[in-house]
Amino acid sequence: MAAELDEFDLIARHFAPLAKAGVDVETFNLQDDAATIRSRPGKRLVVTSDSLVSGVHFFGDEPPAQIAQKALRANLSDLAGKGAQPVGYTLSLHLPSDTGDDWLADFASGLAQDQKTYGITLLGGDTTASRTLAIAITAIGEVAATYPARLAAKVSDDIWVTGTIGDAAMGLKLYEGTLAVGGDLGGEHGDFLRDRYRLPQPRLKMASIIAAHANGAMDVSDGLLADLAKMCRAAVVSAQIRQADLPISPAARAALEVLPHTDLSALFAGDDYEVLFTADSEARLAIEELASALPFGVTRIGHITDAHSSGEVLLMDEQGNPVQLESTGHTHRF
Amino acid sequence: MAAELDEFDLIARHFAPLAKAGVDVETFNLQDDAATIRSRPGKRLVVTSDSLVSGVHFFGDEPPAQIAQKALRANLSDLAGKGAQPVGYTLSLHLPSDTGDDWLADFASGLAQDQKTYGITLLGGDTTASRTLAIAITAIGEVAATYPARLAAKVSDDIWVTGTIGDAAMGLKLYEGTLAVGGDLGGEHGDFLRDRYRLPQPRLKMASIIAAHANGAMDVSDGLLADLAKMCRAAVVSAQIRQADLPISPAARAALEVLPHTDLSALFAGDDYEVLFTADSEARLAIEELASALPFGVTRIGHITDAHSSGEVLLMDEQGNPVQLESTGHTHRF
Repeated sequence: MAAELDEFDLIARHFAPLAKAGVDVETFNLQDDAATIRSRPGKRLVVTSDSLVSGVHFFGDEPPAQIAQKALRANLSDLAGKGAQPVGYTLSLHLPSDTGDDWLADFASGLAQDQKTYGITLLGGDTTASRTLAIAITAIGEVAATYPARLAAKVSDDIWVTGTIGDAAMGLKLYEGTLAVGGDLGGEHGDFLRDRYRLPQPRLKMASIIAAHANGAMDVSDGLLADLAKMCRAAVVSAQIRQADLPISPAARAALEVLPHTDLSALFAGDDYEVLFTADSEARLAIEELASALPFGVTRIGHITDAHSSGEVLLMDEQGNPVQLESTGHTHRF
Repeated sequence: MAAELDEFDLIARHFAPLAKAGVDVETFNLQDDAATIRSRPGKRLVVTSDSLVSGVHFFGDEPPAQIAQKALRANLSDLAGKGAQPVGYTLSLHLPSDTGDDWLADFASGLAQDQKTYGITLLGGDTTASRTLAIAITAIGEVAATYPARLAAKVSDDIWVTGTIGDAAMGLKLYEGTLAVGGDLGGEHGDFLRDRYRLPQPRLKMASIIAAHANGAMDVSDGLLADLAKMCRAAVVSAQIRQADLPISPAARAALEVLPHTDLSALFAGDDYEVLFTADSEARLAIEELASALPFGVTRIGHITDAHSSGEVLLMDEQGNPVQLESTGHTHRF
C-alpha cells in the first residue's frame, strides 16, 4: 500500500466505531486488549484474541508443541495483563495441505501440557486448509464484577513491570544470527534468551495484585515502551521510565554488550509477555509484600506524568535526561 | 500427507481430549459447534469460532464488505443453530502486505451494516500480517441457563430444516463456471443462486422454536447430509430423509436440470447456512404455527431411526429405496 498503516491507527479508524458498550458488554473502545461480558453473580468474563502466523510470529519449523504453547500463552498473557483467571479458549487452526498427523498430535500434546499448567480448557474452534499456517485463539477468563477499565493509569501512579524485559527480543536475534557481527552468546546466557523467545511465561499469578491495586494493567507483547505508550494514550497521560531501574537479566546485559552498537532499542522490541501496571504510590508496600511471594520479580520502573497529554513516554538516564532510541517497539506494520 | 485427514477424525483424535466439561463450562466433547459458559442468572453464553480463508472459503477478489459479512454470518449461523441471541464477536484479521486502507474501510462498513441487522457488537481482536488473507471470528451468544446439549436427536424425532438447500452450492458452480458444459442460468435464477452463495442469511429468528422444541439443532454449513450425519453420530442414532420433501428452490431445480448429469450430490455440497433440527412428533403443530410467522420456510424432511447406531443417513426416493449419491458433503479434506 502507499502509506504503511500501523495497527493502532487502523483499529482506531476502522474498527473502534464497531465496538459498542453497554451494561452487559464493555469493549473499552477497542483501546484495551480485552472486552468483558457480564457473567455469573459477582463475575465478568474477559475475552481476548491473538493470532500467531507462520513467518510473522514464528519461523514455522519449530516443534509443533512449542508453536501451540506460544500461541496459547500469548493469549494467557493477555488474561494475565487483566488480572483474569483462565476459563477456556477456542482454537482456529489454518493448516497447509502437507500437515501430517504427527504434526497435529505433537501440537495437541503441547496444548494438553499447558492446559494442565494453567488450568484452562479447549472450548471448540475450527480447522481449515490454508496456504499459511496460522493459529487464531480466543481466550476467555474471569474477573470480579467490579472490574474497572484496565487502562486507567492516573497521574503520579507508579509504573511497575514483572520479570525482566528484552530477553525474548535478544533470543530472537540469536535465532536470526543478528545479535552481533560474527558474535554469539554461548552457554547458559544464550539458552536462557532463546528459551524466553520460544516460550512465554504468562504471569497469571499477578491476578491478586492487579485486582487489589492496579489502575492501568496490560501485558507487554509489543515492547515495554510501545505498550506503555498505548496505555498512556488511552488514559490521556504521559509517563517517565528510569533506565537505571529497568529489570534486565544478566543474559540480556551480556547480549547488549555484544550488539553491533549500543542502542537500547533491542530491549523494547517486544515478545516479553510480562505484565505492566500502574498503581497509587500509597500501594507500594502492599505490592512489594504480595510480590515477595511470587516466583518472578515485580519492579517499580517509573511514574505517570502529565494529565491531558498525548501518551508521550520518556526513558530517562541517571542524569535525568531523555534517552534517544532508534526504535521503540513493534507496531505490527505491514 | 500420506493419508488425507477429515476434520471429524482430526478433532476426535487430537482435540476432543483437550475439551473438559464442568459446572461452569460445557464443551460437548467438541462434537457440537459451540461450547457454553455459565453466565448471568438464568443464562449461559454460547461460544463458537469459524474462519474464512482466501482461496478456500472465498475467491479473494470479492468486495471486502461481502467477505466481512460472509465471515460474520457464518458465525452468526452457528449461533442460530443453537437458538442463541447474538452478544458480541472477536475478529482476528490476517492481512497480506498489499492490503490498502480502502479495502479495510469497505470491510469495516460491511461489518457495521451487519451489526445493525443482527444486533451484535465487535468485542475486540487483533490484526496481523500474513501471506494469506484470513478472517477468524469467535462469536458469543446467549441462551437460557437450562440449555440442553444441542445434539440430542432422539429416535422417532422429526427432522426439520429451514429455508431451501443446495442454492449456495449451485451459486458456487455458477461462479466457477462448472454448472454445465457450456451451460449457464441467466436472469433471476442465476442472480438468486449467486446471492445465496455470496451472503448467508443466518436464521437467528429460529431461536424461539429451537428453545421450545428442538432436541438436536445445528446449522447446515458442510451440507445437509454431512451435518445430519454429524448430529446422528453424536447422538448414536441414524436418520432417513425423504427426497420428495426436500425444500429446493425453483432456481436450484432449474440448475439441477442443466447439470452435466443428474446426481443430486450438488444439493448437499454445503454453504447453506440453514438450521437443521429434530423435535418430538408431538410438537409438529406447535412448530408449524411458530414457523408461519417467519420470513423463511421450515420444512419437515424425515425422521430419526435406529438408536445405538453409527450415524447412518439415508436419502429415500418416493418408492422408499435409498438414493445413491456420488458425494455427501464437504468434510474439509486437506
